[in-house]
Amino acid sequence: MAHGVVVGIDLGGTKILTVAATPEGRILARRRVATPTGRDGVVGAMRDTVAAVLGEAGADGPAALGVGAPGPMDPEAGVLLEPPNLPGCENLPLAEIFRGYYPGAEVHVENDANAAALGERRFGAGRGVADLCYITISTGIGGGIVAGGRLVRGAAGTAGEVGHMVVEPDGPQCHCGLHGCWEVLASGTAIARMAREAVASSDGSGAAIRAAAGDDPPDARAVDAAAAAGDAAALRIVRAAVRYNGIGFCNLIQLLSPARIVVGGGVSRAWDRYIAPAAEWARQNAFDRPGRMCEIVPADLGDDVGALGAVAVALGDGDRGVGA
Amino acid sequence: MAHGVVVGIDLGGTKILTVAATPEGRILARRRVATPTGRDGVVGAMRDTVAAVLGEAGADGPAALGVGAPGPMDPEAGVLLEPPNLPGCENLPLAEIFRGYYPGAEVHVENDANAAALGERRFGAGRGVADLCYITISTGIGGGIVAGGRLVRGAAGTAGEVGHMVVEPDGPQCHCGLHGCWEVLASGTAIARMAREAVASSDGSGAAIRAAAGDDPPDARAVDAAAAAGDAAALRIVRAAVRYNGIGFCNLIQLLSPARIVVGGGVSRAWDRYIAPAAEWARQNAFDRPGRMCEIVPADLGDDVGALGAVAVALGDGDRGVGA
Repeated sequence: MAHGVVVGIDLGGTKILTVAATPEGRILARRRVATPTGRDGVVGAMRDTVAAVLGEAGADGPAALGVGAPGPMDPEAGVLLEPPNLPGCENLPLAEIFRGYYPGAEVHVENDANAAALGERRFGAGRGVADLCYITISTGIGGGIVAGGRLVRGAAGTAGEVGHMVVEPDGPQCHCGLHGCWEVLASGTAIARMAREAVASSDGSGAAIRAAAGDDPPDARAVDAAAAAGDAAALRIVRAAVRYNGIGFCNLIQLLSPARIVVGGGVSRAWDRYIAPAAEWARQNAFDRPGRMCEIVPADLGDDVGALGAVAVALGDGDRGVGA
Repeated sequence: MAHGVVVGIDLGGTKILTVAATPEGRILARRRVATPTGRDGVVGAMRDTVAAVLGEAGADGPAALGVGAPGPMDPEAGVLLEPPNLPGCENLPLAEIFRGYYPGAEVHVENDANAAALGERRFGAGRGVADLCYITISTGIGGGIVAGGRLVRGAAGTAGEVGHMVVEPDGPQCHCGLHGCWEVLASGTAIARMAREAVASSDGSGAAIRAAAGDDPPDARAVDAAAAAGDAAALRIVRAAVRYNGIGFCNLIQLLSPARIVVGGGVSRAWDRYIAPAAEWARQNAFDRPGRMCEIVPADLGDDVGALGAVAVALGDGDRGVGA
C-alpha cells in the first residue's frame, strides 16, 4: 500500500482538501482544513495535511503529488502568480517546494478548474471522452477544456474561463469588468441577485421566493422551490438562467464540438430546472452534427472533484493528456 | 524536383484552387477552375488540376496530397458528409479516391477553415505559435483553433465555428438559425445588410454610403470609404461591427487564451477600421494575463491560404500537430 499512493491537494481560498488515493481514484484518507492567511501558513497547512493523509494511508511518501490551485498560475513551472483568493501567495513556487519535501515524487500544479476537468475526465462523468468540456455552475461559472485527449491551457494557462465569455453585451456588469458574461447572468450569484430584486420589488411578486427562502437570503434553491410551485417571478428567473446556460452550452458546441459537456456545481443539482432545458436548447440550436454528437451530463465527483482532479494532475494528465 | 512535391487542393463551392508546392510552402504551380456540379464533375476537376500542377512542377506524383473541403466532413476517414455547398458530393470518400490515384502518396482531408488555420500556422502569420486562433471575416465568419500545437477538431470535426457563437441573443437571425451569432452581426454580409438599410432609410442618412458604393450594391468597402470621410451612418455601422468583433476576440481569449489570433478575410483588409479597435478592446477587457499575452495580427497568405492550408494538411499537420 505504501507504493503508488498519490496525493491530491485542492487548494482553495477558503479551504484546503487533501486526499491520499490509489491511482484508480479510490480515496484512502482525506484532510480538510480552513485556508490560513499568508504564504507560510498556506504552505505549512498543505504540508501538514499531506503528512496526515500519507500517515493514515500507511505511506512514507507520495508516488506523485498534484495541486489544483486558483489562477492565475504557470502550470508548466508549477508557480502561483497573483491569485486574488490567496493573498501573500504571489509567485509561490509550489511544485519546487513539494519536490523539495518529497524528492522521489512527481509533482504537478494546475489551475483548479482545469484540475477538476481532468478529475471528471479520469475518474468521473468524462471517462473515455477525448473532447470534453467541464463546467461548474455555482457561485461563479468556471470550466476546463480537454480537446483530442489533451488539456487546453492556452498561452497564459487560463484557458477554459467559459463563465467570462460575453453573451449579452448590454447585460449587468460582472466583477470581472465585462458586461453580460455568462457568469453574471446565470451563476448562483446571478440567480440570487435576481431573487433579491424580485423580493425587493414593490409589487409583491417576490412573495413566494421570499417564503421559500425562509430566514435565509433568497438563492437558487429558493427560486427552484418557488418555481416548482408555479410562481411566476421564480419561473421568470429560471427562464433567464436557462436562456444563458443554453447559449453558453451552444457556444461551446460551436467552438469546440465536445463529445460531452460535464456540468457540476451547486446550481446544477437542480438539473431539470436549470440545466436540462438549456442542454436541450443548445443541442437543437447548435449545428446539426456537433449538436447531436454532444451529450450534456451531470458531474460525478461532487465535492471531491477538486481533490480527485489534483490526483489526475499528479498522474500527469495536464502535461501528457489521457488516452481515450 | 520530382521528389517531395506536395499538392494542396482548396475545394470550394465556387472554385477549386490546386497548387503544387515544396514542403516549405513555395508554390511551384497552380490551377484554378470553377467547381463543376455533381460528384463526378468535382472529382474529375480535382484530378485534372492535380495532374496539371504535377506536370508543371515536373513531378510524377505527389509525395503527399491534402484537401481543404467544406464541412461537414469526417477528417479522420477523409470523407465529405453532406456539404451544403457541394451538392451531389454526399459521403464522398475523397481520401480513398486520391489514395487510389496516387498509391505512394500520403493523403489527408480537412475542413476548409481548419486547413486555413494550419496553413497560417505552418507558412503564415501563425508560425511558431502553439496556441492559435485563425479567423476569417469575409462573407461569413469562420475559423480554426490550434491548442498546444494541435488542431482542435472536436468530436464532429467541426470545431472552430467561431462565427456561430451567439453574442447578442436578441440580434438578427442568421441563416444558421441562431439569433445574434457573431457572423450575422459583423461579417461582410452583415455590414452590407446594415449599409443597405442605411441607404434605404427615408431620412437620407445613407447618402454618403450610396455615393461611395457607386453602381455596386453597398458593401463593407463602401462603408469603410464613407466612414473615412466622417459619415455618421457609416461610422455607426463600423461601431456595430467593431463591437461584435471585439466581443468575438475577447470570448476566444477567455476560452482559449491563444498566443495569437490571426485574422484574414476581405473585411480584415480594412484593418484599422474593423479590426484594430476591436482587437484593442478585447485585449483590454479580457482577463489581464491572457489579454496581454494575445497578439491579434493580420493573416499572411491572402488568397492562397486555402491551398497552402491544404499543403499543411497534406504534410499531416491536422493529425500530428506541429512543433512550436
